[in-house]
Amino acid sequence: MKTRTMRPIRETIPIEDARRFLMDAAGPIDRIERLSIDDAAGRVLAAPVVSTIDVPPFDRAAMDGYAVIAHDTFGASRHEAKVLRSVETVYTGGTPSRRISPGECAEISTGAPLPTGADAVVMVEETERMDGAVRVFTPVYPGQHVGRRAGDIAAGQPVLNAETPLNPARIGALAAIGARQVDVYDRPQVAILSTGNEIVEPGQPLAPGQIYNINRFTLSSIIHAHGGAITVTSTVPDTLPDLLRAIDSAASADLIIFSGGSSVGERDLIVDALQEAGEVIFHGIAVKPGKPTILGRAGGRPVLGMPGNPTSCLSNAHVLLIPMLRKMARLPEYVPQTVTVPLSRRIVSTTGRHQIYTVRVIDGTAVPAFKGSSDITSMAHADGYIEIPAQTDIVEAGEMVNVKLF
Amino acid sequence: MKTRTMRPIRETIPIEDARRFLMDAAGPIDRIERLSIDDAAGRVLAAPVVSTIDVPPFDRAAMDGYAVIAHDTFGASRHEAKVLRSVETVYTGGTPSRRISPGECAEISTGAPLPTGADAVVMVEETERMDGAVRVFTPVYPGQHVGRRAGDIAAGQPVLNAETPLNPARIGALAAIGARQVDVYDRPQVAILSTGNEIVEPGQPLAPGQIYNINRFTLSSIIHAHGGAITVTSTVPDTLPDLLRAIDSAASADLIIFSGGSSVGERDLIVDALQEAGEVIFHGIAVKPGKPTILGRAGGRPVLGMPGNPTSCLSNAHVLLIPMLRKMARLPEYVPQTVTVPLSRRIVSTTGRHQIYTVRVIDGTAVPAFKGSSDITSMAHADGYIEIPAQTDIVEAGEMVNVKLF
Repeated sequence: MKTRTMRPIRETIPIEDARRFLMDAAGPIDRIERLSIDDAAGRVLAAPVVSTIDVPPFDRAAMDGYAVIAHDTFGASRHEAKVLRSVETVYTGGTPSRRISPGECAEISTGAPLPTGADAVVMVEETERMDGAVRVFTPVYPGQHVGRRAGDIAAGQPVLNAETPLNPARIGALAAIGARQVDVYDRPQVAILSTGNEIVEPGQPLAPGQIYNINRFTLSSIIHAHGGAITVTSTVPDTLPDLLRAIDSAASADLIIFSGGSSVGERDLIVDALQEAGEVIFHGIAVKPGKPTILGRAGGRPVLGMPGNPTSCLSNAHVLLIPMLRKMARLPEYVPQTVTVPLSRRIVSTTGRHQIYTVRVIDGTAVPAFKGSSDITSMAHADGYIEIPAQTDIVEAGEMVNVKLF
Repeated sequence: MKTRTMRPIRETIPIEDARRFLMDAAGPIDRIERLSIDDAAGRVLAAPVVSTIDVPPFDRAAMDGYAVIAHDTFGASRHEAKVLRSVETVYTGGTPSRRISPGECAEISTGAPLPTGADAVVMVEETERMDGAVRVFTPVYPGQHVGRRAGDIAAGQPVLNAETPLNPARIGALAAIGARQVDVYDRPQVAILSTGNEIVEPGQPLAPGQIYNINRFTLSSIIHAHGGAITVTSTVPDTLPDLLRAIDSAASADLIIFSGGSSVGERDLIVDALQEAGEVIFHGIAVKPGKPTILGRAGGRPVLGMPGNPTSCLSNAHVLLIPMLRKMARLPEYVPQTVTVPLSRRIVSTTGRHQIYTVRVIDGTAVPAFKGSSDITSMAHADGYIEIPAQTDIVEAGEMVNVKLF
């Protein structure tokens, strides 16, 4: 291992540029997997879906009531009911046994097939039952309260386009055409490699100088919530050979995320590992927190070097990783829920750095909650964050701010 | 089975009343389960979490640089550097071996324990290394760039309150204090009972008069996305004994949802089943779609009778079930992402019924997408919905509408 010394970050790039580099590095996943529609919500269709059946497969009653010939009802009113002979009852799931002729009707349940001859349904509320006959109090037009065969989806018709995210309604459309399985894009597989010789997994005892691994858990939560899957998590010692081995061992990942080792200390070797295994695209973003962030590439895959400080890492995950990951997962842009409220007290921001400033929302005001980059409570005790552009130095008390809620 | 006839819904209740009845019937779940923090994101804390350790457990460097006695740096500038003797290097995960005396410093990595005697850190960017010594170009104040022991979380301090939903940052706070497991409230367990003799599961062939089960899948997706779990799904024939047996068989559920059988036909027996097994709270809501909806109670649990029409059922799930379920799951109110855009063309709404009208958002306008209550494509081909209050009959083209996105 060669001897290293500190190498200050000499030039940071604006956050907009960093975002662009990340988006350029994010290749949408092409792998496809077939899933049961029970498991496909939130996933993205890999191919257009064309129906092989008509939905509904037959003309059917759209209301409970009576299947009639519309013409027979013309002129009906509360004062002058039309009387029709009820010839049978058609239940949903059943089939009509006979044709409706003029002067006749059939009691019919919502969803039951319309008898031949009938062309409309009178709602039960507009009728009164008599012995073997029915008084109809309203006229209906042909087609009224009838769900036409193929009115929802026609055989041969594209139901959903490729690249469509499957929300509950679209899962329902797949069920409607009888599709039990569906081809969706695979989720981006992410490796989370925690560096830092001080890092210990929660549940283990701490020795002097040690702290618990936080970033593995915050990153995993974010990744799961935004369409990714975790393929590898491991803790890697801060040596160049170990880092290079870790990159190799994550060969199955679509994205490698290192936490820690991205700064300028003697043991911050992510830059060196990337220079050896691939390339460094940028090192250092004019953002606070989150400045010591690296984007590189190794083995054709993007490698993100996140700061070890838990708030820096998680802040970056919100503003940089989520958009990148969603592009890889082919999910639409994430729009956090936002509230616009006055700021409770002045914030002095760092000139030249885009600031992600966490706040609580208390009694309709944004109350600063940011403590420090290393304090996870800066995020955990906050409700969301405001963004202060690099060129803004001061946000005054009372100014309206857009709080993006976690 | 006794002979039944159609029983029209005589009185519907306003949607606001329906919502209130549902919320009153929704008891927050008291059962608790212990989960790994790997699986706890999105869940709700069942007890306050108090830390047993200080985080960080020691004073530490917040920057890569040099641990110094702040007083030694006073007066330093680019022109007049202060020169300090570097006595050792403290790495993260390691421990300092000696005390810093006046005129001395220690090279230190972010996160490493501060040596005794030192009270500040000078950033590497503000220094220049010489042989065995360091030129310091800036003064620092005592405590600068030092993360104080317990500065994030102090032992004995409450870290998170009970009832807190666990977002990524809060999962991180649990990791920070070494908590590998956490007590969260159990999810509401939901039984989905599909009635309708015409209903067939996707993947099976359709006989005449049959259609595929859609509601089971749309309801499952919604329930999973809003904090619920599915305990039972089954298809129940439309007879009173079968419905009563189904209610009994779902005894482990916190909420029973029937789809279908909630209207007024001869085989719409949910009302009868509830009258026999418990009570009916309401039957019929002045909403479109979704009018034939029932709320009841059986065996101490709420029972929701949803319309069989897939768009009615899913529309109700969005506006009624989600708030109810989230209350049971102790999750905060769901606020759908909303865009405010002009309506592309006039909508004539049904007087006296609150209307849920699906739309697409195309070129910054809301384009009506609603076909019919029975058409799942009314929802699957829509981007969201607008709500038209019961007392509004017409929404004109060009009027601004709030589209709640799916």
